[in-house]
Amino acid sequence: LAGFSITVRVYYEDTDAGGVVYYANYLRFMERARTEWLRALGYEQDTLIREEGLLFAVRSASVNFIRPARFNDLLEVNATLSELKRASVTFEQQVLLSDQTIAADGVVRLACLDAASLRPRPIPENLRKDLSRAG
Amino acid sequence: LAGFSITVRVYYEDTDAGGVVYYANYLRFMERARTEWLRALGYEQDTLIREEGLLFAVRSASVNFIRPARFNDLLEVNATLSELKRASVTFEQQVLLSDQTIAADGVVRLACLDAASLRPRPIPENLRKDLSRAG
Amino acid sequence: LAGFSITVRVYYEDTDAGGVVYYANYLRFMERARTEWLRALGYEQDTLIREEGLLFAVRSASVNFIRPARFNDLLEVNATLSELKRASVTFEQQVLLSDQTIAADGVVRLACLDAASLRPRPIPENLRKDLSRAG
Amino acid sequence: LAGFSITVRVYYEDTDAGGVVYYANYLRFMERARTEWLRALGYEQDTLIREEGLLFAVRSASVNFIRPARFNDLLEVNATLSELKRASVTFEQQVLLSDQTIAADGVVRLACLDAASLRPRPIPENLRKDLSRAG
Repeated sequence: LAGFSITVRVYYEDTDAGGVVYYANYLRFMERARTEWLRALGYEQDTLIREEGLLFAVRSASVNFIRPARFNDLLEVNATLSELKRASVTFEQQVLLSDQTIAADGVVRLACLDAASLRPRPIPENLRKDLSRAG
Repeated sequence: LAGFSITVRVYYEDTDAGGVVYYANYLRFMERARTEWLRALGYEQDTLIREEGLLFAVRSASVNFIRPARFNDLLEVNATLSELKRASVTFEQQVLLSDQTIAADGVVRLACLDAASLRPRPIPENLRKDLSRAG
Repeated sequence: LAGFSITVRVYYEDTDAGGVVYYANYLRFMERARTEWLRALGYEQDTLIREEGLLFAVRSASVNFIRPARFNDLLEVNATLSELKRASVTFEQQVLLSDQTIAADGVVRLACLDAASLRPRPIPENLRKDLSRAG
Repeated sequence: LAGFSITVRVYYEDTDAGGVVYYANYLRFMERARTEWLRALGYEQDTLIREEGLLFAVRSASVNFIRPARFNDLLEVNATLSELKRASVTFEQQVLLSDQTIAADGVVRLACLDAASLRPRPIPENLRKDLSRAG
């Protein structure tokens, strides 16, 4: 699952009065890609919360907004696991325009949390193995 | 608290590529006004959930989008309690431009729910009295 | 294109602290379905703005929120053209949970506007014919 | 205007099913603070677009999400100009909980763009002076 990507259509809801995608919404698109990457690995996040009592929360995000995406554009959003630690994962992500130029790119680090207490906890061994294999 | 209103500034986040407030966002502005109305009555919704185990959920909304509001406009959003039933409340609301013309108006009905089960429950007597007095 | 529908995945961005889809976001999902319906008819809205100088703006929306959709649900959102007038179109729409029960339904009326002046204008004859055939 | 801050109330619209503020929404709160900072300096952004033909666009944002803010919290969001260059400005920002602990902090860089072409242009001298004095 290196090179994993999804397509995202830009609707009015995603744009702002500048005529382009509102910059904070690239973070939404990047999250969708991470979610679908995890789903492709066989992990549904609602099941992880309910059965494993764990969730992933974004701890930091560093994003460059390079070229504007516009209403009705069809974007490609990718996600590559770049670091896997005991209780956190880091992704490198890009949002590409249809001509394959980069609209936005960034690095997002997520912590594995206990779903009830919201405190950090180690990633369970099975999940870690699957993440490691896919990254 | 008849004639209750708040002001809402339009930021980029609220607009779309049409250069105007994204229509679904008027529903957000209306909710802010209802929340502040309830707060002015002395009710904090997080306390209602935690201590009374109740929340209000929107059951229906009927909204007319009349004139566009734009980036940086300062809007007035009002909320008037128009009907108080055993387990629901209905508000009439308007979003006004700075020249007092109507950008959007509508009717929003909320049900009182048990916060855990999300099932309808009667509005507690004290709260009902305060709502009734304010409406 | 009667019975037209799309699927919508519920991401964190769509939910609120009640654990369910934030009610105003159903309006976003309904718009996505209308956009894809129009695309299936061969009309791209960015092209309509640029080449025909026209856009559709929501004039009224009346929505019932019946059952909550939750994080990670896969929804079906349909759109049926129910009325076609000289300068407006009306859709009946539903958002369905995976068990085919209705999460939300509603009626949305859109006006055809001149993209520059934002004033009402008649729907062009070709587009009207295609809408009429599909409705 | 060193130490400039605004208060932001957390509404349902800002939260997600984790019960906390959706992380991308801190970027919205930070933008509101920058906008109000500029307004306090006497600059309305809609006027800047219309009369000066310029707008500021976020070029990069690096944000740490440290402690969760929750529904109904009253946040303080500050903005400090940390760097002023020929065609860009950089802000250091914090979102504080009511106990003054940090919910999120970050650095946001904005480019000054020509509003029509969306190309970089120098910050006009008057504006630069006012920014410099306030920073």
